[in-house]
Amino acid sequence: MTGGSRLPHFADRLAALVEERRSRVVLGLDPDPASLWPEALERFGGGSAGGRFARANTAEAVVEHCRAAIVSAGPACVAVKLQLACFERLGAPGWEALEQTVAIARDHGLLVIADGKRGDVPVTARAYAQALVGETPGPFGPVAGLGADAFTANPLLGRDSLEPLVEAAAAAGAGCFLLVRTSNPGAVELQDQGDPPLHERLARLAHELGERRTGSSGLSLVGAVTGATQPALLARLRELMPRAVFLLPGVGAQGGRVEDLGAAFAPHPAAGLVTASRSIVNAYAERGGDPAAAAAAAAEELRNAVGGLSGH
Amino acid sequence: MTGGSRLPHFADRLAALVEERRSRVVLGLDPDPASLWPEALERFGGGSAGGRFARANTAEAVVEHCRAAIVSAGPACVAVKLQLACFERLGAPGWEALEQTVAIARDHGLLVIADGKRGDVPVTARAYAQALVGETPGPFGPVAGLGADAFTANPLLGRDSLEPLVEAAAAAGAGCFLLVRTSNPGAVELQDQGDPPLHERLARLAHELGERRTGSSGLSLVGAVTGATQPALLARLRELMPRAVFLLPGVGAQGGRVEDLGAAFAPHPAAGLVTASRSIVNAYAERGGDPAAAAAAAAEELRNAVGGLSGH
Repeated sequence: MTGGSRLPHFADRLAALVEERRSRVVLGLDPDPASLWPEALERFGGGSAGGRFARANTAEAVVEHCRAAIVSAGPACVAVKLQLACFERLGAPGWEALEQTVAIARDHGLLVIADGKRGDVPVTARAYAQALVGETPGPFGPVAGLGADAFTANPLLGRDSLEPLVEAAAAAGAGCFLLVRTSNPGAVELQDQGDPPLHERLARLAHELGERRTGSSGLSLVGAVTGATQPALLARLRELMPRAVFLLPGVGAQGGRVEDLGAAFAPHPAAGLVTASRSIVNAYAERGGDPAAAAAAAAEELRNAVGGLSGH
Repeated sequence: MTGGSRLPHFADRLAALVEERRSRVVLGLDPDPASLWPEALERFGGGSAGGRFARANTAEAVVEHCRAAIVSAGPACVAVKLQLACFERLGAPGWEALEQTVAIARDHGLLVIADGKRGDVPVTARAYAQALVGETPGPFGPVAGLGADAFTANPLLGRDSLEPLVEAAAAAGAGCFLLVRTSNPGAVELQDQGDPPLHERLARLAHELGERRTGSSGLSLVGAVTGATQPALLARLRELMPRAVFLLPGVGAQGGRVEDLGAAFAPHPAAGLVTASRSIVNAYAERGGDPAAAAAAAAEELRNAVGGLSGH
């Protein structure tokens, strides 16, 4: 990076896309090699089973699966959220599949959120920032990272572990979503404990890190992951983080309901993003028929449901 | 995995190696492409600067750097701790370099700790477990993961996010080190807050997850990352986690002193592992001379210093 942003402010890019696409839906891609769409396996075709090519073949099939999901469900969405674990488990070919999926999403006009929930001591946080939104200087010239538009981060290690991530995001025109209250049942065990509860401490931290990093939309590049499964908390979290974009997982399979999420969207049309993975990609299991058609329909329905919420 | 462990219990494997090598030192490898050992660059040689090969060349040089560090400092250590961020920032070739470094460490008789501090909702935790210590079923046959002997994990998401990691570790004969109190200055901000402080809650959680997963050494496969920079906390943490192996970062560059770490080692010779990265790999900057010789000397000195502590 040579000073100045590569791109406009993340929240402004997001706000423009929300306006243009009339959508606040994020397509989550958590590809499971054991349940790829049949068309992905067919399109890939050439793979022979087992042996030393299993890994490379699987990674290529994963790319085709993600491509098909993006082509069908993408038009109803503003971004994809790529679950890094699902690519990492395929090793080096999996990371290559991740890179290819980033490119495909971008070609389809979608922002890319790298969902890795990284968090580490400052020197290592800088390395993660290089991996996700920056580049790494080296003896043979700089090495470009993934080039994500935004990423998720785990704040447990505290402010000094987050500053390098936020600074790198700012330099790249990217966004950083801090975990504040996750959507899993076990979240209550630690995140809701204490007085004030840990999730309020995390919310204050996210607000402080982001409050002077707002775009012309008034929204900050420091966002928050706030599970849709605990709608009762959202109003308080919005109070604590008036400028944060809320990334809302947990609608559908995990039990969250779109109509309960109003507080998330109150300050701005782009202040809340509903992320859905299995309820779109695996919609055909419930709806029947073609996976692509079912995914397109599920994404479109979710777009409409979220579209009816406030946000100016 | 087809039921039963691939390998004996992690803590027993660790205890045997601590006994055999008379060492409780972990060599941290956080390769920075901008400061690789000159011999790594020379051995690699062939690379031309810049352009599309920068990334692959850098990754290959990183492997040579790690190999040289393992060959020189490894004999005084029981394990390597590989900082995943430093490999990920080189993309797919970086992940390949990670896999090669795992193989090199194993060839030199060292256990491999994958330091990625992952943590996610249960379904994703299972994917991380597959990536680190398991395998992923798929249409072309199973895809093997990294095959680490142990890994670090971030517990912020709570017990349901950790159980899949711990179960996968048990099935693979691997260990899982939960972050309890990290070594960075910012750790105080969240981990020391509350009553009881969050680090005590995390310690209880680590103990509960691990107390029935002990080997014949009496130590559990669920360990804890407990920074050497806060020695005053160690006695209390040891009380809360009598069966956990403590992974102790922060000695040296971050200010932790080996002689303050006694409580960590009290229950068993293998109950504490001191991890050192830059203070070994970059020892030549202070000591002068050959990087390999300086690293070997620094690792040997640390082995001796830690060897003098109790543990039975």
